[in-house]
Amino acid sequence: MSVSFKKYTAEFIGTFVLVLFGCGSAATAGGELGYLGIALAFGLSIVAMAYVIGPISGCHINPAVSLAMLISRKLTGIDFIGYVVSQIAGAIAGSALLYAIIVSAGMPTTGLGQNGFGPGYGIGISALMAFIVEVVLTFVFIYTILGVTSTESNGNVTGLVIGLTLTFVHILGIALTGTSVNPARSLGPALLLGGQALSQVWVFLVAPLAGAALAVAAYQLLNSSKGK
Amino acid sequence: MSVSFKKYTAEFIGTFVLVLFGCGSAATAGGELGYLGIALAFGLSIVAMAYVIGPISGCHINPAVSLAMLISRKLTGIDFIGYVVSQIAGAIAGSALLYAIIVSAGMPTTGLGQNGFGPGYGIGISALMAFIVEVVLTFVFIYTILGVTSTESNGNVTGLVIGLTLTFVHILGIALTGTSVNPARSLGPALLLGGQALSQVWVFLVAPLAGAALAVAAYQLLNSSKGK
Amino acid sequence: MSVSFKKYTAEFIGTFVLVLFGCGSAATAGGELGYLGIALAFGLSIVAMAYVIGPISGCHINPAVSLAMLISRKLTGIDFIGYVVSQIAGAIAGSALLYAIIVSAGMPTTGLGQNGFGPGYGIGISALMAFIVEVVLTFVFIYTILGVTSTESNGNVTGLVIGLTLTFVHILGIALTGTSVNPARSLGPALLLGGQALSQVWVFLVAPLAGAALAVAAYQLLNSSKGK
Amino acid sequence: MSVSFKKYTAEFIGTFVLVLFGCGSAATAGGELGYLGIALAFGLSIVAMAYVIGPISGCHINPAVSLAMLISRKLTGIDFIGYVVSQIAGAIAGSALLYAIIVSAGMPTTGLGQNGFGPGYGIGISALMAFIVEVVLTFVFIYTILGVTSTESNGNVTGLVIGLTLTFVHILGIALTGTSVNPARSLGPALLLGGQALSQVWVFLVAPLAGAALAVAAYQLLNSSKGK
Repeated sequence: MSVSFKKYTAEFIGTFVLVLFGCGSAATAGGELGYLGIALAFGLSIVAMAYVIGPISGCHINPAVSLAMLISRKLTGIDFIGYVVSQIAGAIAGSALLYAIIVSAGMPTTGLGQNGFGPGYGIGISALMAFIVEVVLTFVFIYTILGVTSTESNGNVTGLVIGLTLTFVHILGIALTGTSVNPARSLGPALLLGGQALSQVWVFLVAPLAGAALAVAAYQLLNSSKGK
Repeated sequence: MSVSFKKYTAEFIGTFVLVLFGCGSAATAGGELGYLGIALAFGLSIVAMAYVIGPISGCHINPAVSLAMLISRKLTGIDFIGYVVSQIAGAIAGSALLYAIIVSAGMPTTGLGQNGFGPGYGIGISALMAFIVEVVLTFVFIYTILGVTSTESNGNVTGLVIGLTLTFVHILGIALTGTSVNPARSLGPALLLGGQALSQVWVFLVAPLAGAALAVAAYQLLNSSKGK
Repeated sequence: MSVSFKKYTAEFIGTFVLVLFGCGSAATAGGELGYLGIALAFGLSIVAMAYVIGPISGCHINPAVSLAMLISRKLTGIDFIGYVVSQIAGAIAGSALLYAIIVSAGMPTTGLGQNGFGPGYGIGISALMAFIVEVVLTFVFIYTILGVTSTESNGNVTGLVIGLTLTFVHILGIALTGTSVNPARSLGPALLLGGQALSQVWVFLVAPLAGAALAVAAYQLLNSSKGK
Repeated sequence: MSVSFKKYTAEFIGTFVLVLFGCGSAATAGGELGYLGIALAFGLSIVAMAYVIGPISGCHINPAVSLAMLISRKLTGIDFIGYVVSQIAGAIAGSALLYAIIVSAGMPTTGLGQNGFGPGYGIGISALMAFIVEVVLTFVFIYTILGVTSTESNGNVTGLVIGLTLTFVHILGIALTGTSVNPARSLGPALLLGGQALSQVWVFLVAPLAGAALAVAAYQLLNSSKGK
């Protein structure tokens, strides 16, 4: 099996797990878990996956992370496309299994952990504010990833730190946008649900990518050794 | 005391702790703990046990883990049998002490943290879906174990990562099947309770073993160095 | 300042923090925190203290831990007495500040996070069962401590593992006995409250010490290198 | 870009994140998160920021921490001023974005995660007791920081330990004062809200600085190698 195929398969599996477990926890047991439980479902998907697919593909499982690595010249253009396609496919597959679970339980198929904003979603912030929030959440997430992966000395805690940081951005973001910071994670549920989830999904495609680009810029400006 | 006897005793103690604390938390204080608290009770049993019985037996405390190690040729056939017998005995002992605690408190002895599916259990998924869910949950759990234990460099965080991954699969799975991923953990309560817990237990014996075999196959396909 | 005085002062501070934060969380905000929050208050006291007083005294902050170290010949008889006296003094001081906080808020001074059993405490288990539960909880806690501290390779995660293990035994134990596993932690609130807390405290003095002795015996039997 | 400008910008970003995420979680979703979720929002801000701005500025993001480093001669007087100004500016910016989010959602702008005491705040302790509590909370937080950062061997877990310790002091403190331990974190919301938050803020400026000074004194007395 080729190295590329292994990497793309790893990204498919990882994003499948992120969406099934993260969105699935919110959709099937959000009330019993509370926001903290949902935040940990998303965050621990990184902990679980980083230590097994990390050595294969780097465990991006998020197009915004792959974009940051592309800009930072740690990922080729070909691999960027291969990663993003695999991530979106994994997210759709994860959403599809979640859909089947919900149907099996006879629950209404209106909630798949989709992101959103406006009246009736979370505390009801505006589209503009949702965009700003997603830029900030993604900036924090990816700025931390760039920092913690920059040195060998963080070694074996890297996956824990990134997972806890994804938990962190969910703790604030669930009430605001449901927390995307990941275009693939938002696209999966939106494609299966259509309606408002799909009409609002552009915010969760564009803002995380913008936040990722800003994080790379900040990292290069602040964390480079120039000027020291 | 022989090495084998030490290993089997360690597996007995570890599985006893997993079942008493995990199932016990769900049965005696599930409402106060919430799903997240129950998920952590199961997950932290690995954290507690890995650092003390890990050096003796590897801290499998789960026949699905032992099967994965058998297939991966890290466990002999004799030890596989010794491990599984010890794990089942430990699970029964843990369930028995939990039963005595519940009797002592005058609570109804209908809940011992058993797994299940169908109407009246969790969100009520079907037997087929419960089987699929358990295969996926166990795949994720054991695929991560294979990854994190494959390199010395993860060293002292291995127990934390595996424990947090067991927490992770419980966060999603409690509402669906109660999360087995471990035939011994399911068999203990089922044998003491009988009834539906026992009639449904086959799913929680077979599906975790199937998930474990799939995890080994995926690991050998994706994480091997061939093709690099 | 002499080394002994530093060690005893460190044990005083650590046990003061354990009791003030652990019992204080239960007494002032138990409902808002839930059992999991209370369990983390106790567990994280170890994380906080281990990395600062650990290098001074070993951060026992628990007479049952000191007994295990005495039996394991890692603590002298003189130091054992000095440690235990300091721990009890710290626990009383922590309970006293908690008492003052509760008085300041005009809350009833009937709850200081005391341990207990029987009708009206937790799920209401018997004295005998409370004794058994405390032996088991302490066995797990101290058996893990003996394992994780036995090798240099666990290095900088030792405090995290012990803290998460104390969290773990609280997750199960809060509903049963409130979880002592620590005679000093039980004695502090009992001395200030008197009444049932004081009349039942013998269980929480004797059972943790018995569990500690059993843990040392199990460790020497199973984890020694003899027979390998 | 000069080294100083990088350090001050890093402190601005870090304190912005601490206040936006910590205070924001309390203000927008405190009920759904519970005290434990809020405590983790504050604590994980350290985990996220330590691994990326730690290498630039040390990730103080708290004037009380910077004071401790000044007294310990690990920070110059000039940098102390630069750090504190940056931290306060970051806290105001974080509070301002939180204010805009709340306005966008049409929620009342009376809660920005401000600290407080007295009738109607938490359990209603007195000003004197609030002062004492903040001294103790900050002492524990900063004494732990001094310990865990004193040795290279804690290496890559340092950020995790400090973050969990900040979580720890929030678990107890939220019901009492909302937990400041950080003058910048208190000043941000107070300046935007005015009223009682501003009139009480002196406690949260003075007590954390006093707690920090006490922590340095205790550390120098107990953890120095003199007398060994």
